[in-house]
Amino acid sequence: MTGEFELIEAFLEPFPRGTGVTIGPGSDCAAVTVRKGMQLVATTDAVVEGVHFDLRRFSPEDVGWKALAVNLSDLAAAGARPRWFLCALGIPRTGRSGQIARRIARGMALLAKRFSCALIGGNVTRAGAWSLTITALGEARRPLSRKGARPGDVLVVAGVLGDAAAGLRPYPSPIAARAQRRPAPRIDEGLRAAGLASAAIDISDGFLQDLGHLCRESAVGAVVECSALPLGKAARALPDGMELALGGGEDYALLLSVPRRKLAALRRRVRFAEVGRVIPGRSVHLTELGQPRPFPRRLGFDHLK
Amino acid sequence: MTGEFELIEAFLEPFPRGTGVTIGPGSDCAAVTVRKGMQLVATTDAVVEGVHFDLRRFSPEDVGWKALAVNLSDLAAAGARPRWFLCALGIPRTGRSGQIARRIARGMALLAKRFSCALIGGNVTRAGAWSLTITALGEARRPLSRKGARPGDVLVVAGVLGDAAAGLRPYPSPIAARAQRRPAPRIDEGLRAAGLASAAIDISDGFLQDLGHLCRESAVGAVVECSALPLGKAARALPDGMELALGGGEDYALLLSVPRRKLAALRRRVRFAEVGRVIPGRSVHLTELGQPRPFPRRLGFDHLK
Repeated sequence: MTGEFELIEAFLEPFPRGTGVTIGPGSDCAAVTVRKGMQLVATTDAVVEGVHFDLRRFSPEDVGWKALAVNLSDLAAAGARPRWFLCALGIPRTGRSGQIARRIARGMALLAKRFSCALIGGNVTRAGAWSLTITALGEARRPLSRKGARPGDVLVVAGVLGDAAAGLRPYPSPIAARAQRRPAPRIDEGLRAAGLASAAIDISDGFLQDLGHLCRESAVGAVVECSALPLGKAARALPDGMELALGGGEDYALLLSVPRRKLAALRRRVRFAEVGRVIPGRSVHLTELGQPRPFPRRLGFDHLK
Repeated sequence: MTGEFELIEAFLEPFPRGTGVTIGPGSDCAAVTVRKGMQLVATTDAVVEGVHFDLRRFSPEDVGWKALAVNLSDLAAAGARPRWFLCALGIPRTGRSGQIARRIARGMALLAKRFSCALIGGNVTRAGAWSLTITALGEARRPLSRKGARPGDVLVVAGVLGDAAAGLRPYPSPIAARAQRRPAPRIDEGLRAAGLASAAIDISDGFLQDLGHLCRESAVGAVVECSALPLGKAARALPDGMELALGGGEDYALLLSVPRRKLAALRRRVRFAEVGRVIPGRSVHLTELGQPRPFPRRLGFDHLK
């Protein structure tokens, strides 16, 4: 079976590059110029029943919230202000589909209102399982992307790690359950970091995997001091909390690279943990209290596994 | 089970209206103002294996083409110029998924190149069946919508009717098969009609159903002379070709209402058939050679049936 990244590459191959495109496919967000000094930032993400959620563990309100949250988190990482979104629903044949759709909408609308992001369109179709494919549109003067980290930059994390993965364990604590079901996209942090960070990514696939994406796209390496990682309360209470923070995914914290001279300015605007630095080369090294630390076995999430 | 339109209404209920939104949810396209005199027009549509296509009848290239075509057709009806699109793929666990994805991309890229519409982003996820959810973005000075038809306007169709439905019959003719598998969105016609038509819709659900949408949104009625409908070559060759033209769907012709004084100008720019007129009230009447004609039994497509 083909892996996610090979498949994306094969899919993109026949398409020509368009005009007005400043960030193209392969990134979490695309950006196109719509007027002088302003770019439209667009992202699309799907959640599918049986793959991303289970209606026995997630309420329909949770599903609606999270489907929008994962998209807004991509806008956050681009430093974009959310404006509008479209939602395509796949709906299975069940007697309760109307009621479930209504509850999904309620959860989604809660988050949409918080960030003044308006639902402007959508689509419904019959499908084998519930699915929600959202396309979110935002605006940014100079959108951030995974490209742009330079050796010497500081790596920082805004938000906490590991709690969302802890929320998948049996009998999760309320904090862990909430992190898994109602993640909060870091929109304000992204907007405040936009003029200062050199590159950014939201931690959806797992810290190490997303750090790997950022390093690959920026053609740099990294050193990360694991004891500095901002573990969430639920992850800290678990014996393998560090593993969850490194490889668990779905935290939707922001990982930013920041030129050292801009770090003080960022500190005045955003709460973050300084977790490492960007180095030349291509490899990622982990340390714990300054000593080399092995990589965890589970490195993150492949969307086709 | 809830019908499509009730479900959409229930879903939309909790969402507030956004700023900068000139055409909101419930239309085929949304429109938002991105700069003075220019609106971004957005639409999203999904095609799902087992619901909209069957890989035993459709080649993967057909699927890729059609998934984009149905979205571009919505932009055509808005009189918008296609610029960019995003594509979210749902991919089942099969050994051949890489190869199928590559072929889907090839068909989609053919159409994208024809209209200089650039793929700017997307998403892949595991799913129970193949699905393609596309969000297409275009630009228009003053986008057309279903609203705006006035009593006295002339109803015209650009494109032909019935051939796509004929393409679903066993052993379809090459014309019918092509109409079903590789529909051509009427982008040029939409752009040329944009300054002249009062309302527009693309005929995706079936002529009568889409006419009904246009009439309902414009709060008008209509009289249609069936002998004037532009049946395609394949539909004309069938004994029930008129039924297919009225209720078959998936033709992606454009139905436009045009103020009578602008009809001559439209005729110089677009090939069309004059099929009826807009009347006061709310009801749609069919005539054939001037005599009242009953409605066909099958009225069109409900996406949740």
